[in-house]
Amino acid sequence: MMNAEFTYKLLAKDGAARRGKITTAHGEIDTPAFMPVGTLGTVKGILPEQLAETGAQIVLGNTYHLMLRPGAERIAELGGLHKFMNWEKPILTDSGGFQVMSLAKFRKITEEGAMFQSHFDGSRHHLTPERSIEIQCLLDADISMAFDECTPFPATEEVAAESMRLSMRWAKRSRDAFKRRSGYGLFGIVQGSVFPELREESAEALKQIGFEGYAIGGLAVGEGQELMFETLETTVPHLPEASPRYLMGVGKPTDIVGAVLRGVDMFDCVIPTRSGRTAQAFTRRGTLNFMNARHAADPRPLDADCTCYTCRNYGRAYLHHLFRAGEMLGPMLLSRHNLHYYQELMAGLRGAIEVGRLDDFAFEFNNQYSADDIAEI
Amino acid sequence: MMNAEFTYKLLAKDGAARRGKITTAHGEIDTPAFMPVGTLGTVKGILPEQLAETGAQIVLGNTYHLMLRPGAERIAELGGLHKFMNWEKPILTDSGGFQVMSLAKFRKITEEGAMFQSHFDGSRHHLTPERSIEIQCLLDADISMAFDECTPFPATEEVAAESMRLSMRWAKRSRDAFKRRSGYGLFGIVQGSVFPELREESAEALKQIGFEGYAIGGLAVGEGQELMFETLETTVPHLPEASPRYLMGVGKPTDIVGAVLRGVDMFDCVIPTRSGRTAQAFTRRGTLNFMNARHAADPRPLDADCTCYTCRNYGRAYLHHLFRAGEMLGPMLLSRHNLHYYQELMAGLRGAIEVGRLDDFAFEFNNQYSADDIAEI
Repeated sequence: MMNAEFTYKLLAKDGAARRGKITTAHGEIDTPAFMPVGTLGTVKGILPEQLAETGAQIVLGNTYHLMLRPGAERIAELGGLHKFMNWEKPILTDSGGFQVMSLAKFRKITEEGAMFQSHFDGSRHHLTPERSIEIQCLLDADISMAFDECTPFPATEEVAAESMRLSMRWAKRSRDAFKRRSGYGLFGIVQGSVFPELREESAEALKQIGFEGYAIGGLAVGEGQELMFETLETTVPHLPEASPRYLMGVGKPTDIVGAVLRGVDMFDCVIPTRSGRTAQAFTRRGTLNFMNARHAADPRPLDADCTCYTCRNYGRAYLHHLFRAGEMLGPMLLSRHNLHYYQELMAGLRGAIEVGRLDDFAFEFNNQYSADDIAEI
Repeated sequence: MMNAEFTYKLLAKDGAARRGKITTAHGEIDTPAFMPVGTLGTVKGILPEQLAETGAQIVLGNTYHLMLRPGAERIAELGGLHKFMNWEKPILTDSGGFQVMSLAKFRKITEEGAMFQSHFDGSRHHLTPERSIEIQCLLDADISMAFDECTPFPATEEVAAESMRLSMRWAKRSRDAFKRRSGYGLFGIVQGSVFPELREESAEALKQIGFEGYAIGGLAVGEGQELMFETLETTVPHLPEASPRYLMGVGKPTDIVGAVLRGVDMFDCVIPTRSGRTAQAFTRRGTLNFMNARHAADPRPLDADCTCYTCRNYGRAYLHHLFRAGEMLGPMLLSRHNLHYYQELMAGLRGAIEVGRLDDFAFEFNNQYSADDIAEI
């Protein structure tokens, strides 16, 4: 562990978009950054060294999953999550709030926190802002997230306001519970659904408390890309220029490009690995599905222009064969390609901001990229 | 591809045991050798580079599986099995005979060959000695195996004799069908169940035909280690000293040690990978099962003396967690360890033969190794 201060340095701007660098106890993160998701202490199907090779500088761990299996105290006894999973670079953990809403059974939300039953063994748990922060500290996350309630979508303005205000009170308790340590940071989470006034109120409340970074929560929950972008446009201007901004759980490549254009610095999403396990590969022209028989006799690499391990060493016919045969190597190779693709996209976005050509980059990207499964690249 | 002759060089002897080197079109194989099984064109859960790193110099491919998926002609069009699966070192393919007996539905054996239905899609196929050899040539196997009938166990001496003699006629047809190419070899397979006279008759018949190597088939099918060793003792003396000897489908570590003592040079088995997928790890003291809760809080490596990737980077508690959580990384890490273990065992056997101390090595090995799941190493 380095003894660095937790800092965000703004290196360049291009419109609303920012090129920056976050420094944490376990290393630096170039932003805009994509964080692969390692829910249970492993990014599914890829070794840590291979993950670093794709360009990943930080991974996300899930508080909800890790508190249930193998338990936060257990991981702390074993030296923390970095050591446990053999990942020496930075880790961000979420607060558990989102999974309590989406996965847990029989949840009950009170002012105090959330009571719930585990989704896999039915055991009872209590998660409060204080306990969430304690767990994230036990995991030794470089970046912890304030505990929040993820507002359902759609929600009336009244419900969204009540939920957001509860999250703001929890944000204050999270801040108070967070033990300040050099190189570690706590991010607040802006809520307020798709209501600009609520988003503004939430952002102002968080700035009053003061955090090392500001996340935008409650999006990518079914509102659609247009409404997500609109919400970013009315929310981001209320966030401090001097801190990193993180759009939680996003997203597809076009979501990321659009959000970077609107001033977002950090992203996390299961799409590259989940797609990789279900035979879907990302390319600059759109996705390819390797279950499709048209790949069966095709000797070409997935993407001739891609420099990832998979594209350098295997043909499409082989990838098709692996998925048809149900071999583990299929998900391994495609997850690795997709993670590489996402990191290359981020590198492209960073480079474009540095030279002030992000609009051109985004135009060309959106022009090339098809949302549907494509026939050819 | 090198243009080497297919050769076997006997480098040292220690009792019946032999230290040798096989040269093939795609490289050399130090014997005694263990061949990981890559049934469908991938050794499950491990990348080719990682496999080579364990010390593996040759892998086995299954004719039966590959003829059904993706098809031998398809693989040939794509440049052969080495290129298809990104493995540049030697490959041995079996003849399909064993899987027709153990996996296929509605099989019918005639003098001509075997009619059967695919175990996964019900499609009808005909496998003859000529077609088996053609498939193995299409796959570009460095070592092809003669097509044989795997005699059921137990079998009466009469049934075993009839089955063996059919296999010997098929061996002659296999030899005739095999296109001689520099660096490529064809192995005959001794059958005869557990009857010494039949094994001798079979070995003599194969020697009359003449092969680049001689396999011992029809063992490890339920006869037990003692009877397997007895059969080796009465069979191996009838095999030519100048050719490699391959015990098919074997086996557990103690099987391999005992077979090397009795003059066997080559082995293949799914045990290291299958065990790796089911949480079982090999150590010099026996196996550990990582589903067992006693590993849950144990920070130590699987085997502190092991130099494999898994043991250098992860603790037992993490391996336990991965298997409990059903994460792909568990099978990946344990298969890699087990394959490393098997290759280290072979290296130990080779070293012991070179210095004339194989008896000591085997005594010490068997003394340390427990057949049961062990509590501690």
